[in-house]
Amino acid sequence: MLEELKKSVCQANLDLVAHGLVILTWGNVSAIDRQSGLVVIKPSGVSYDNMKPEDMVVVDLEGNVVEGNLRPSSDTPTHLEIYKAFEQVGSVVHTHSTYATAWAQACRPIPNLGTTHADTFHQAVPCTDEMTKEQIESAYEAQTGVSIVERFKDMDPMHTPAVLVAHHGPFTWGKTAKEAVQNSVILEEVAKMTSVTVALNADVEMNENLIEKHYNRKHGKNAYYGQK
Amino acid sequence: MLEELKKSVCQANLDLVAHGLVILTWGNVSAIDRQSGLVVIKPSGVSYDNMKPEDMVVVDLEGNVVEGNLRPSSDTPTHLEIYKAFEQVGSVVHTHSTYATAWAQACRPIPNLGTTHADTFHQAVPCTDEMTKEQIESAYEAQTGVSIVERFKDMDPMHTPAVLVAHHGPFTWGKTAKEAVQNSVILEEVAKMTSVTVALNADVEMNENLIEKHYNRKHGKNAYYGQK
Amino acid sequence: MLEELKKSVCQANLDLVAHGLVILTWGNVSAIDRQSGLVVIKPSGVSYDNMKPEDMVVVDLEGNVVEGNLRPSSDTPTHLEIYKAFEQVGSVVHTHSTYATAWAQACRPIPNLGTTHADTFHQAVPCTDEMTKEQIESAYEAQTGVSIVERFKDMDPMHTPAVLVAHHGPFTWGKTAKEAVQNSVILEEVAKMTSVTVALNADVEMNENLIEKHYNRKHGKNAYYGQK
Amino acid sequence: MLEELKKSVCQANLDLVAHGLVILTWGNVSAIDRQSGLVVIKPSGVSYDNMKPEDMVVVDLEGNVVEGNLRPSSDTPTHLEIYKAFEQVGSVVHTHSTYATAWAQACRPIPNLGTTHADTFHQAVPCTDEMTKEQIESAYEAQTGVSIVERFKDMDPMHTPAVLVAHHGPFTWGKTAKEAVQNSVILEEVAKMTSVTVALNADVEMNENLIEKHYNRKHGKNAYYGQK
Repeated sequence: MLEELKKSVCQANLDLVAHGLVILTWGNVSAIDRQSGLVVIKPSGVSYDNMKPEDMVVVDLEGNVVEGNLRPSSDTPTHLEIYKAFEQVGSVVHTHSTYATAWAQACRPIPNLGTTHADTFHQAVPCTDEMTKEQIESAYEAQTGVSIVERFKDMDPMHTPAVLVAHHGPFTWGKTAKEAVQNSVILEEVAKMTSVTVALNADVEMNENLIEKHYNRKHGKNAYYGQK
Repeated sequence: MLEELKKSVCQANLDLVAHGLVILTWGNVSAIDRQSGLVVIKPSGVSYDNMKPEDMVVVDLEGNVVEGNLRPSSDTPTHLEIYKAFEQVGSVVHTHSTYATAWAQACRPIPNLGTTHADTFHQAVPCTDEMTKEQIESAYEAQTGVSIVERFKDMDPMHTPAVLVAHHGPFTWGKTAKEAVQNSVILEEVAKMTSVTVALNADVEMNENLIEKHYNRKHGKNAYYGQK
Repeated sequence: MLEELKKSVCQANLDLVAHGLVILTWGNVSAIDRQSGLVVIKPSGVSYDNMKPEDMVVVDLEGNVVEGNLRPSSDTPTHLEIYKAFEQVGSVVHTHSTYATAWAQACRPIPNLGTTHADTFHQAVPCTDEMTKEQIESAYEAQTGVSIVERFKDMDPMHTPAVLVAHHGPFTWGKTAKEAVQNSVILEEVAKMTSVTVALNADVEMNENLIEKHYNRKHGKNAYYGQK
Repeated sequence: MLEELKKSVCQANLDLVAHGLVILTWGNVSAIDRQSGLVVIKPSGVSYDNMKPEDMVVVDLEGNVVEGNLRPSSDTPTHLEIYKAFEQVGSVVHTHSTYATAWAQACRPIPNLGTTHADTFHQAVPCTDEMTKEQIESAYEAQTGVSIVERFKDMDPMHTPAVLVAHHGPFTWGKTAKEAVQNSVILEEVAKMTSVTVALNADVEMNENLIEKHYNRKHGKNAYYGQK
């Protein structure tokens, strides 16, 4: 079942390790088959050392395990909320990468201070609101997803495909697992360079015209970056 | 004698190097066999390059060498104080890893500012009190252990399995050598990301409910992280 | 056509990856054949994994593709402005390397605070002025080049072969692709160490005599660094 | 001539690269044969890629080349001043390693804030005085050595075997090339962790008793660290 998707999700999880974004068993990638509404996700707390495509778990959008011998990632309900709310999302990635997590712990959105950011993320990478005691104590992981979706009520999730969960860490997404992982790589790099930037100049602001130019030369209707 | 334990202690010492937590001959791992009350520990000041299980030294809880041709780590008395006071501890690790040592040098506990921390350490990672002239000048290494034990008089050492020794560096522990090393890896990562966090936002405080939730979903009686 | 130059430009692009200065498809190197006035440049948005000399694109100084099946780097017009204005430049490199980009995002020139800087860059590495809305909205990449050239109107580009484009990132140059890449390596190292320096001492100033001495012992008419 | 010393100096230069302390052709190691008064040193500006023992240059204490086809390091006169003034020194190392150079550029001595420092360097790692115009303009490299020696007039160079040259970078030394390189490795690690420490707590001071204890347990007359 969904063998190709399992391969790409397994590979994407291993790519997180190769890119230095996760250590130990931290981090998880999922991808959705929109036709069947089924989601393939990494098993919970399993070592990356011998992870194979057949270890991936298949769940439906309510979180029921449809296939697989292992428990799905404990963060599965967060992923599912994102798939339910953001219809164009094909894959979700969660890491505790060092600098993006530092911003999340600081409860600060990452401001859009340069073209490196604007090439991928149209706006500041937002930070979710503090979760309430009630949210944390009932269906915590699903409520984490709810807080992400709430944060994007006036933003396009495909234009700024990343979020910081307050006190926790980053989630990114994309059309494919490869793209979602790439967005995590870029987010970590942007988080690092922007932490240095604000230390060097706490008051700098982005040139708005430059943001629009860079975002649109890659993603706008007349985009001209890359090959046709 | 204790061949399996020697193998795991030797491997754990090598793993510190592989994880980038120690350079030169810095750092040491020990483990205890609770039945016999004997402790296996790395020899003092020996290069990691050709370290073998048979180089490990066996000492009793009073620090007498029971087996081995080399001197035990000069920090052995610190390890022994921890084993004597914390009965559930099976292994102790000491490193001078960069960021954890920086917090220790700053004499600042590492505050619990995120779920990365709360997943492993229930409270702030504490820093010991300044040692007195008398403590330093008599049985210094044992007194270092005493200052660690003193620091945990109102804390559960298995819930927060790490400490910073003021002006010195971190010690971590766990049930096994593998777990104790893993706690050193996590401590260094937490120390790094939290140093960035406090630079980005000096005033942030953790959400207490989130700490409880994360610590308990992994370690509480209804834990559901990982596989059964 | 220009087979040797294609080889050296391709290798220089791969060297950026090996030196850790670029990730994904970021960064680009070009070199000019001054006799024919033709420029060899990396194709746009292409992965480094299988990049070969024959993938390089040849353009003239007006930006017309003379040879190659792929689109040239979207930053090509910036490179061309540099070649047109700075006649001794043989190669141009653009990266988003972490620390140099952080300074560019902070819109701060990198001050010349040490001999590491002075050995290669005679003056502070300057930062371009903010681009106007008009510049950004018409021929943006060429205007980026114009803002670089404008910044050097009172400076010798061969004595300080690097610039920060405000809110964007660094460009470096040199007589050959190898030298231009080397200048990017040095710029990133200087950007990193100087960000640490200003955190340790915000007010330090360079010793002007030392700058002159170091720059000249390597590049002055009586230079004596290196072999004859 | 001095074949064993050439081998160890060549290897020590390569070890600087392996430890990540130098890039490109930066950095140099020398060692002295005290019987003959001859010094073996790295050639100037030569790539590390194919460096061989026979490329090393032999000079006397006045700087005359006694053997070798290449020019000696341009920093040779600095090394010679150190050998002439500090009779127990057998080897000198100069690098531009990132964090030690950042402290040198900041013209700040590295305070002794922890046992990592005290295990190797008894006091703060000092920073030389600003060099005068006259010093810089005549026999600059020898005058650099003079400023180092001057800085140690009330310090024991074998107890604190490292210095920061203001606006420039670190020099370390030791009895052998291996020890001198090791001191450069430790200095860089201490420079990094102490830059993080002072950001976390600008006012922390070292416990003087702890400094004495740690320095002496490794280097004092009753040292008990390491094997007999």
